[in-house]
Amino acid sequence: MKLTILGCHSATPREHKHTTSQLLEVKGNLFLIDCGEGTQMQLRKSKIKFSRIQHVFISHLHGDHFYGLIGLISTFRLLGRTAPLTIYGPKGIKEIITLQLKLAKSWTDYELHFKELESTVPEFLFEDEHIKVTTLPLEHRVYTNGFLFSTKSEKRKINSEAIADLDLKPFHFTQLQNGFSIELENGKTFENEKLTHPPEPQKQYAYCSDTVYNEALVSEVKGVDLLYHESTFLEQHKELAKKTKHSTAKEAATIAQKAAVKQLMLGHYSNRYGDKNEFVKEASAIFENVILSEDLKSFSI
Amino acid sequence: MKLTILGCHSATPREHKHTTSQLLEVKGNLFLIDCGEGTQMQLRKSKIKFSRIQHVFISHLHGDHFYGLIGLISTFRLLGRTAPLTIYGPKGIKEIITLQLKLAKSWTDYELHFKELESTVPEFLFEDEHIKVTTLPLEHRVYTNGFLFSTKSEKRKINSEAIADLDLKPFHFTQLQNGFSIELENGKTFENEKLTHPPEPQKQYAYCSDTVYNEALVSEVKGVDLLYHESTFLEQHKELAKKTKHSTAKEAATIAQKAAVKQLMLGHYSNRYGDKNEFVKEASAIFENVILSEDLKSFSI
Repeated sequence: MKLTILGCHSATPREHKHTTSQLLEVKGNLFLIDCGEGTQMQLRKSKIKFSRIQHVFISHLHGDHFYGLIGLISTFRLLGRTAPLTIYGPKGIKEIITLQLKLAKSWTDYELHFKELESTVPEFLFEDEHIKVTTLPLEHRVYTNGFLFSTKSEKRKINSEAIADLDLKPFHFTQLQNGFSIELENGKTFENEKLTHPPEPQKQYAYCSDTVYNEALVSEVKGVDLLYHESTFLEQHKELAKKTKHSTAKEAATIAQKAAVKQLMLGHYSNRYGDKNEFVKEASAIFENVILSEDLKSFSI
Repeated sequence: MKLTILGCHSATPREHKHTTSQLLEVKGNLFLIDCGEGTQMQLRKSKIKFSRIQHVFISHLHGDHFYGLIGLISTFRLLGRTAPLTIYGPKGIKEIITLQLKLAKSWTDYELHFKELESTVPEFLFEDEHIKVTTLPLEHRVYTNGFLFSTKSEKRKINSEAIADLDLKPFHFTQLQNGFSIELENGKTFENEKLTHPPEPQKQYAYCSDTVYNEALVSEVKGVDLLYHESTFLEQHKELAKKTKHSTAKEAATIAQKAAVKQLMLGHYSNRYGDKNEFVKEASAIFENVILSEDLKSFSI
C-alpha cells in the first residue's frame, strides 16, 4: 500500500495547509479518503492520475472533510470520465451532491453510486481480489466513521526459476497458486513449497478521523501496520479536545499503544500550533513509533 | 473602485488557474462576486482582510462560480465572525447552503441572509451611501445574472482652504455639500462653487459571466467604465461557444463596442488555450481598449 497525504490540517484550508484528504494506492487501485476543499488541486499537484479513483470514503459531513467532493465529481465529468464512481459516506451525502447537480442542470456521464452509512457498528463496505474495506465507527459531534483497509491474503507466487524446465499446464498454475502440490503427465509429483514463494504478508491501514478518545477503537485496530489517528490538539488543550470531540496527541498514542499497532501517524492539526514536533514529543512518551502526516508526502505501508 | 481578480478561469480549478471569483472594493466596503472552489485560499493570498466582506453576489449555480461559497461561510464562523452576511444568488442557493449546514449540525454565529433571484429583468439588489447594485440578466445554460455596480453621485466636497477663515456652523457644511450657497451670521453670502469642489465622478463596473452573445445587454451596460465580459472561447470555437452558451473574445468586444464602454476586461478562459494574448488580439480588432483578467491582479476603476 502507498498512502499519499493530500491534506492533514483541520478546520479551514490555507495556502500551505490543506484540510483532510488522503489517497491510498493498492495494486494500482486508488481509494480517496475524505475530500476537503481544494482536494482536486492537491491531486493535480501530486501528479497522480486521479481519474483512476473509483471509490471515495467520506468520514463525516464537516466541511474540512468533504467540501471538495462536489468539485471533484464535476471535474470527473468535464474530463470525460466513463468509469463508475462509488461514494461511501454518512446518510445525507447523496442529497447534498444530487441537489447541487440538479440545480446546475448537470449530471455525470458516468455512473455515480452512493452507499450511505448509518450503522454504529463496524460495517463491510467493499472488497476485490486485493483489498477489503470496513468502517470503524468513531465518536464525534456528528455521525462519523473511520475506515479499515486490509489487503487480502494473496495467492502463493510461482517461483519462475523452479518451474523453468517443467512442462506445466494452466491448471497446474492454479493448483500451485492455491497451495496444492502437483502431478505432471509423466507421473512426477512436486511439493507446492518447492515451486512457489509464500504470499505477500497482509497489510492493514486504519484511518481514524475525527474522534474523541475512544477505547472501543482499540480492539478494532489491533495490530494494524499503520494507524492514522487524529490529534487535533496537544494535552495543554485537553479540555477543548473533549468539548469539541477531538483527540490530543497523547490520546492518539494511548490508542496506538493499547492496540499494539506497528506505527502511528498523527494529523488533523489545529492551526493554533506552530511546531508540529510538539505532537511527536507528546505522543512518543506513550508510544515509540510515531510519524507526522504532511501535505503531499507519501508513505509506504 | 478597486477590482481584484481572485480567479478568471473556467470549468475546473488547477494549481495556477483558479475558477471565477472577484472582489470589488468601494470606499472600504468589500463585495465578493462569484466564489469558485478555493476562493478562500485566494483571498488569503491576496492579503485582503476578507472578514470585511458583507455581500456576496453569485451569478449562477455552476460549480466554477460557487463551490467555494459553503467553505467561506464555514470559515467566517470559525474565525468568529459576528457581522451579518448577505448572499445574492439564484433560487436554490439557500437550500444548498442550509442543507450542508444542517447535516454538519452546524450553523453560523452571525446572521446569514439570502436574497434569492428569479427575475429575468434587471432588479435592484442593494444600495448604501456609496454604491448601488443591480442585476444584469444573462443568457446561459442555467438561470444567470451579471451585476452592475454604480457608485452614487457624491455630495460636493468642501474646499478646506477656502473655508479656513470662515466661521461656519454645522448646517452650513450640509448646505455646501448639497450644492447650496450660504449666508453667514454677519450677512455675508458665498456662492457654493467658491467653497466646494465638484463631486467625484460616478463610476460603473459591469460583471457579465457566463453568457452567450446577447445584444440585449448593450443597453444595460451603456458607457460603463469597465465591462468584464466572459470570453471562454476564441472565434475558432464559435460553434462550441454557441452550443455551450458562452461567448468568444470577438463577441465580448462587439458588446463593448456597441455599448461604447470605456474599457473591456476579458476572462473565464477555457483551459484549451495556452496564449492569452490571442484573446486580446481577437477583441482588439473590434474594440480598442481591452485588458486581460489575471488571477490575483488588481485594477483601479
